[in-house]
Amino acid sequence: MTPVTFLSLGPGDPELLTIKALKTLKDADVVMVPATRSNEGVMKSRATDIISEWCDDNRLMVYELPMLKDRQAVSLVYDRIFADCVRLYHEGCRIVVAVEGDVSIYASIHYVMERLEEASIPVVQSAGIPSFIAAAASAGLSLVSQQQRLTILPGDADAEMLHQLLSSNHVVVVMKLSQCQEAVKEFLRRNPQTVCHYFENVGTPEAYHTSLSDEILSRQFPYFSLCIIYPA
Amino acid sequence: MTPVTFLSLGPGDPELLTIKALKTLKDADVVMVPATRSNEGVMKSRATDIISEWCDDNRLMVYELPMLKDRQAVSLVYDRIFADCVRLYHEGCRIVVAVEGDVSIYASIHYVMERLEEASIPVVQSAGIPSFIAAAASAGLSLVSQQQRLTILPGDADAEMLHQLLSSNHVVVVMKLSQCQEAVKEFLRRNPQTVCHYFENVGTPEAYHTSLSDEILSRQFPYFSLCIIYPA
Repeated sequence: MTPVTFLSLGPGDPELLTIKALKTLKDADVVMVPATRSNEGVMKSRATDIISEWCDDNRLMVYELPMLKDRQAVSLVYDRIFADCVRLYHEGCRIVVAVEGDVSIYASIHYVMERLEEASIPVVQSAGIPSFIAAAASAGLSLVSQQQRLTILPGDADAEMLHQLLSSNHVVVVMKLSQCQEAVKEFLRRNPQTVCHYFENVGTPEAYHTSLSDEILSRQFPYFSLCIIYPA
Repeated sequence: MTPVTFLSLGPGDPELLTIKALKTLKDADVVMVPATRSNEGVMKSRATDIISEWCDDNRLMVYELPMLKDRQAVSLVYDRIFADCVRLYHEGCRIVVAVEGDVSIYASIHYVMERLEEASIPVVQSAGIPSFIAAAASAGLSLVSQQQRLTILPGDADAEMLHQLLSSNHVVVVMKLSQCQEAVKEFLRRNPQTVCHYFENVGTPEAYHTSLSDEILSRQFPYFSLCIIYPA
C-alpha cells in the first residue's frame, strides 16, 4: 500500500511546486486540503488554488480550519483528518495531505503525521519552498552570506530579541508577522538605519514587497506577511 | 531582452526542481554551471547531474571552481562568469546561471548577480529547496513548531553558541558541517541527551541519515553534510 504523503505546496505560485509534487498529485486518489472561512463567510483555500490546475475537484477533500486560534477546535479537525487517513489507507487509497509552504516549517499538521506513524501507517514528507525563500527570490535578495547566521522567528519577536540577534550577525526572518507587528514597528522606529524587507502574500497575484520604512510603518500587516531584517 | 536568471536547483534530486525551474531550463540558450575537480583530477558537477535530463550538453557552459578556500581564485572565476553574462546578454541570449541548493542561502554567486544589477543588466532569482528543508523531509522531521525558533549556522558553530541557542528554544541547523566537526562532536559528547539528526549528500543516491550519537561521533564528516539539533 502507498504511504500517506504530506506534500508541501510552497507559498502560493503553482509554478513553485516541485516536479515530485506534481507527480504525486497526479497519482493521488484523494487530496486533503485545508480551507478557512472569511469574516464574510466565504470559504477560501490557498492550497486548492495552488493545485487546481493539476487536481480535479472530485479527488479533493476540503477541511475547514477555524480562523481563530482556538486550539481545541483545530485539534478536532486534525482528529477528523487522521481518522479519514486511517480509513482511506486501509481501503487502499493513495492519499495526499497538502500543506501550504513547507511541512517542516511551523505546520501543525505534522501532528497528524506523527499520529499516523504511531498507528504504524507509513508516511512520507515531500519538501517545498518555504515562504521566506520565495520572498527572498521575489526581491532578488541574498538571505545569508559568508559568516552571517539566519534566524526564523514565529511571530513572537520583541525589540530586545531583535536587537540581540541582529547585533550578533543574525539575519532575522519574522513569520506570522501580524502577531507581533507593534514590536517590530517599534524596533524599526527606534532603529531607523535598519534594512528591513517587508512582504505580503508572497507567491500570489496580491504579492507586495517594500523596504521603505515609512511604507512598512503605515501598513496594517495582514495574516500572510513576513519580514527579513539585516544586521547593520 | 531576457533577464539573466539565477536559478536554484535544490539539493540534488532532479525531481526537487520546481516547475518554474524546468520551464526556465528548457527555454535557456545558455546554462552556466559550476564544477569542481576532485583530488584525483576528475571534474564533477552536481549541478550538471541535476539538470542533465532537461538540458543537453551543447547549451552548458561549465566553470571550474577551485576546491580550496582560495578567495582570489574563486573571484577570478566569478569575474569570468560576469563577463560572459554581459557579452551573451548583449548578444540577446537567454542566460541561466544554475546554483545548487537555493541561491539566497550562502551562495557566493550572488556577488555576480549584484555586479550585473550595478551594470544595469536585469536579473531575476528563482527559488529552490534549501538542503536543510530537503533533509527534514527525507527524515520525516518537523524542523520547527509552535514557539520554537530556527537558526541556520554556516559551519562556525562552537559549543558555547550551540548551548546558548538550544537553551533559548532555537532549533539549530549547522551547514558546512565539516568546517566545525570537532566543535559539534565535542558538544554531543558533553550533552549525550541531545537529539541530533545528521545528514550527508541530501537528495542524492549517496544520501545518508542517522540520529544515533555513536554513529555520528565515529563519522568523518564530508563536504556535503549538515545536522539538525533540537532543544531539550
